[in-house]
Amino acid sequence: MLIVMDHNASAAQVRAVQEAVEAMGLQAAPIPGRERTAIGVLGNQGYVDDTAIRNLPGVRECIHVSKPYKLVSRDFHPESTLVEVGAVKIGDGHPPVVIAGPCSIESPEQMVAAARIARDGGAQILRGGAFKPRTGPHSFQGLGEKGLKYLRQAGDAVGMPVVTEIMRIEQLDAVCRYADILQIGARNMQNFDLLKEVGKCRHPVLLKRGMSATLEEFLAAAEYILAEGNSRVILCERGIRTFERATRNTLDLSVVPLVRELSHLPILVDPSHATGKRSLVAVMSKAALVAGAHGIMVEVHPDPAKALCDGAQSLDGEEFREMMGDIRALLSYLGY
Amino acid sequence: MLIVMDHNASAAQVRAVQEAVEAMGLQAAPIPGRERTAIGVLGNQGYVDDTAIRNLPGVRECIHVSKPYKLVSRDFHPESTLVEVGAVKIGDGHPPVVIAGPCSIESPEQMVAAARIARDGGAQILRGGAFKPRTGPHSFQGLGEKGLKYLRQAGDAVGMPVVTEIMRIEQLDAVCRYADILQIGARNMQNFDLLKEVGKCRHPVLLKRGMSATLEEFLAAAEYILAEGNSRVILCERGIRTFERATRNTLDLSVVPLVRELSHLPILVDPSHATGKRSLVAVMSKAALVAGAHGIMVEVHPDPAKALCDGAQSLDGEEFREMMGDIRALLSYLGY
Amino acid sequence: MLIVMDHNASAAQVRAVQEAVEAMGLQAAPIPGRERTAIGVLGNQGYVDDTAIRNLPGVRECIHVSKPYKLVSRDFHPESTLVEVGAVKIGDGHPPVVIAGPCSIESPEQMVAAARIARDGGAQILRGGAFKPRTGPHSFQGLGEKGLKYLRQAGDAVGMPVVTEIMRIEQLDAVCRYADILQIGARNMQNFDLLKEVGKCRHPVLLKRGMSATLEEFLAAAEYILAEGNSRVILCERGIRTFERATRNTLDLSVVPLVRELSHLPILVDPSHATGKRSLVAVMSKAALVAGAHGIMVEVHPDPAKALCDGAQSLDGEEFREMMGDIRALLSYLGY
Amino acid sequence: MLIVMDHNASAAQVRAVQEAVEAMGLQAAPIPGRERTAIGVLGNQGYVDDTAIRNLPGVRECIHVSKPYKLVSRDFHPESTLVEVGAVKIGDGHPPVVIAGPCSIESPEQMVAAARIARDGGAQILRGGAFKPRTGPHSFQGLGEKGLKYLRQAGDAVGMPVVTEIMRIEQLDAVCRYADILQIGARNMQNFDLLKEVGKCRHPVLLKRGMSATLEEFLAAAEYILAEGNSRVILCERGIRTFERATRNTLDLSVVPLVRELSHLPILVDPSHATGKRSLVAVMSKAALVAGAHGIMVEVHPDPAKALCDGAQSLDGEEFREMMGDIRALLSYLGY
Repeated sequence: MLIVMDHNASAAQVRAVQEAVEAMGLQAAPIPGRERTAIGVLGNQGYVDDTAIRNLPGVRECIHVSKPYKLVSRDFHPESTLVEVGAVKIGDGHPPVVIAGPCSIESPEQMVAAARIARDGGAQILRGGAFKPRTGPHSFQGLGEKGLKYLRQAGDAVGMPVVTEIMRIEQLDAVCRYADILQIGARNMQNFDLLKEVGKCRHPVLLKRGMSATLEEFLAAAEYILAEGNSRVILCERGIRTFERATRNTLDLSVVPLVRELSHLPILVDPSHATGKRSLVAVMSKAALVAGAHGIMVEVHPDPAKALCDGAQSLDGEEFREMMGDIRALLSYLGY
Repeated sequence: MLIVMDHNASAAQVRAVQEAVEAMGLQAAPIPGRERTAIGVLGNQGYVDDTAIRNLPGVRECIHVSKPYKLVSRDFHPESTLVEVGAVKIGDGHPPVVIAGPCSIESPEQMVAAARIARDGGAQILRGGAFKPRTGPHSFQGLGEKGLKYLRQAGDAVGMPVVTEIMRIEQLDAVCRYADILQIGARNMQNFDLLKEVGKCRHPVLLKRGMSATLEEFLAAAEYILAEGNSRVILCERGIRTFERATRNTLDLSVVPLVRELSHLPILVDPSHATGKRSLVAVMSKAALVAGAHGIMVEVHPDPAKALCDGAQSLDGEEFREMMGDIRALLSYLGY
Repeated sequence: MLIVMDHNASAAQVRAVQEAVEAMGLQAAPIPGRERTAIGVLGNQGYVDDTAIRNLPGVRECIHVSKPYKLVSRDFHPESTLVEVGAVKIGDGHPPVVIAGPCSIESPEQMVAAARIARDGGAQILRGGAFKPRTGPHSFQGLGEKGLKYLRQAGDAVGMPVVTEIMRIEQLDAVCRYADILQIGARNMQNFDLLKEVGKCRHPVLLKRGMSATLEEFLAAAEYILAEGNSRVILCERGIRTFERATRNTLDLSVVPLVRELSHLPILVDPSHATGKRSLVAVMSKAALVAGAHGIMVEVHPDPAKALCDGAQSLDGEEFREMMGDIRALLSYLGY
Repeated sequence: MLIVMDHNASAAQVRAVQEAVEAMGLQAAPIPGRERTAIGVLGNQGYVDDTAIRNLPGVRECIHVSKPYKLVSRDFHPESTLVEVGAVKIGDGHPPVVIAGPCSIESPEQMVAAARIARDGGAQILRGGAFKPRTGPHSFQGLGEKGLKYLRQAGDAVGMPVVTEIMRIEQLDAVCRYADILQIGARNMQNFDLLKEVGKCRHPVLLKRGMSATLEEFLAAAEYILAEGNSRVILCERGIRTFERATRNTLDLSVVPLVRELSHLPILVDPSHATGKRSLVAVMSKAALVAGAHGIMVEVHPDPAKALCDGAQSLDGEEFREMMGDIRALLSYLGY
């Protein structure tokens, strides 16, 4: 940490800051400059809580050099993490995975039809939402536990592991019983209690980036899960909120190679939620894979025009098959 | 709702859209134009779920005229809502309230000292956090239920109602037992399950705006609480996330008069979290009240330099007293 | 400046960085830490160009402590600047000014009618746009030099100094001939050539904040003008672009007290462009003054419904008179 | 256009709006609803200026269906535009182009060395900046006209056409004399006077997206150039400003396929400015090409560590050669 003093901070104020740093068991190295003094903080392991410093008289700002995460950092864990779900492997050195399925589970028939589209197209994992976070209370909220059963049955019917979103801690038992991977949605990325609870599970966790989360906050959210003992975390970029409304969100593909530099965890991309437009899903899926994503997650539906949720971004069987053909060609170019 | 067709949509596609609208029990009024056809949707009450339409061939976009909230809208409930907490009244026609207290509850002594600062300065409601949402797991997470007790004791000692944040549904009983107002924090504004549960309580709810929530989403989140039967909701603007980092968040004061136009619910402002800078708290509090806020929520701490959380934005006793003197003068100018 | 090295930077890399710093005539102070080494840079006056450092092997990031401006900084010029325009004084210790007038100059009659509204309401300075930046080329682009004449005539008729926007360097002579204050619009805040040219004038410059400019960039843009010798610069906050669309822009009022801390230049607020809504102009004007603005700039028009530009945010004579009555009461509360 | 009336707008207000629409020579089609009345506007060609409507009593909002651009729209010009610069062709059906060169021109030697790197790596067009927009006035501002000569000489030496940024209208003659393509930088995307002037040239124009420009504004800016008669416009996405600071800007790759849908103009991507990080340039270049970009623009420098500008994002000869090898393999996968 670097502590920057005010232009006109007194020598006594600088001393007081040094003492406060030393009271924390750390060393303080003053760096006098022509304009102002700065004080380097040494000896810390990981992020320093600056509370006791930031408020002292004469302190202008505290600049953090260490990050609020460590367990997820590649600095301290250079080996890439491989998350295995049944026979499916997600991570470096393995072909990217494709997760496909409907935004929401609507009926056993719809779910099985979607599962067949997913499997026939070549996806490895089936998705489907039983608990749906919706902006307003008057929209369809999902089938709940009944939906979980339909998802499991559909997954078993086609022989695919399944992933579904968990929205509250009370759902944990049920979701763990029916699903192979627990998904934390963007709106819950900083629902820290939920993160802690899934951190106590042994299920892999698919953690979606919050819509206004910085990369640092995203990795710090993952740190909550690892800190509880669960290191089977799969990150997922799904677009961030910006001023641009031509797409539903702004897909921030540059974080894919950045995450690969900074962390050992695998990272997926969800082009369906990021763009909100069916016509962009296939092309942005390919861009994501070229950017280094360990997989993609896309919405498919047997009849998107009748979908109860997010039909505008869902592919039908034909579109998914066509996209997967393209992706196979791309993977072969990428060496898989 | 207005459905805008593609430039080259066929007559058959327009007809198919009309039929889909009618199948929903609504009327469709085509508006042929030189560039493209649009179709007005009539007969709906409130927001129309556009799922069955948006995905039809030839549809370019669906433009919503109705909003995803109704219960919170002044259109349908012109009378302003007054929220009463003991003797304190929050809403139109009553002097703005001041909520004050520490970011986090640290000890019985700290809590009582902060309560005295709050009361002596002239605040009406005491705040304090027992459960703390923190970016990383290695920061102080709050005292939990023990903290709730300290808060209650401090409130009783100074004769003030208390407000505290609830982070998970399991905390509901405890928080309802100890607190007079339940706070939903910015990170949980779209934790819809939590919203539904507090909607079933009889306690007033202080709902903070999410850091990337539009005003429409903010009001739709409040709608979740009202839809469950609890209409004692107090909104709170606390800054939004933008590219600007000179302040912790960007205080969006213009939503104060806008909320007063669009909704009947009272709206407070939290200048401490919005700015993150002690030197801006008093001045932005006054600006908030002039903008029409029904109150403010500020952080005070007996010794900000030793605060375990957010000390940089907390006022000490002296600063709070001085600010409240200014505010009393302002209220007298405002006619209270 | 603080140079942060990679976790695994070698001793040779650290040495190379030190040498590069010393080659710039500065001192390098290594700060070894447990996780990584940082290197403090000493001896610089003002902002250090980090180009020669940032790219060296082993460097993770360069953190700037000095700012890219100095002439506009209160650190080096503690005295507040007072800008005088005829008898009007803008700055600390003087009553806030009101600049009023139409968005665009449409005709001599419209301009004189608007000027009378401005004067009768109690404004001190008249505004009007002759050159209009419009999103698309098919919208009204302003009357050009003819408009400048109408503005001057209207200003003379009511005895008020006038301000108008300059969009290109070739307009400088004409604008200087007709106007008392040169306005640089938000879209030109980083039109650095234009900034340099107005920096060579002796006219005061009203510099509007760019719609995605940080406070630091805003002040650095003003630095361009001061660096050429013109220190009569008036800053103007007019809203920034964020994800929120309920208002045209997001008025960032917190920068008003921040600018007063960081700079000696006066700062105005334009609530008309910031909110884009007539119903919010008066209330946000008052909030701006309470936040410490040295004045406001508002749009008035004799017949807003017929305005060729931005009528939705313009006040008519009646509305302006009413607002100014409120503002006089507020100024008396503020001690003017 | 759709005009939405207030919930409680009177019949007289609705009638007044209808009359105002008809006074514009258009038709008004009222759509009465249960909650509120809306009025469809028919008969317009292109964007309707809503000024005379938006401000009428009882009007809540005007929703535009037409866009503020037409000449750049694929709706009215389905054929893709091909921009030819000497033997280089930019647009559909031709291999993507690579523009490479230093951020700023520093000396004849540096420029020739960079040109050789560009040519030897396989780039088709040479870039280099003679006029540099910099945040603060104390940074290197470019060599000016001398730089233009060095650029031209370097281009001639390696047989490549050259592109350079123009910052002010007075530079037009000089830049046209030395350069083959005129670049409008992000900060000038809405410098409408400059757009009009380059619209009168016969040189192709490379228009970069403003850092907070929506896609609609980006296309409307191009419309300014086409409206003056110059249709040889090449768009360039270079990242937008968001809350995320892990990269310099947020590369918005999804606009690439969107621009291809909405417009007939070619679109390039600049991964150097978008990410600001050398390690991300090659990977994001490939992602851009897979997303459908008609080319990329990257910064190369013979000695990035000594670059006077933006060295952190510049590739050296070795890195560029390696990247271009990868890109050749990718182009062969893409069928070129």
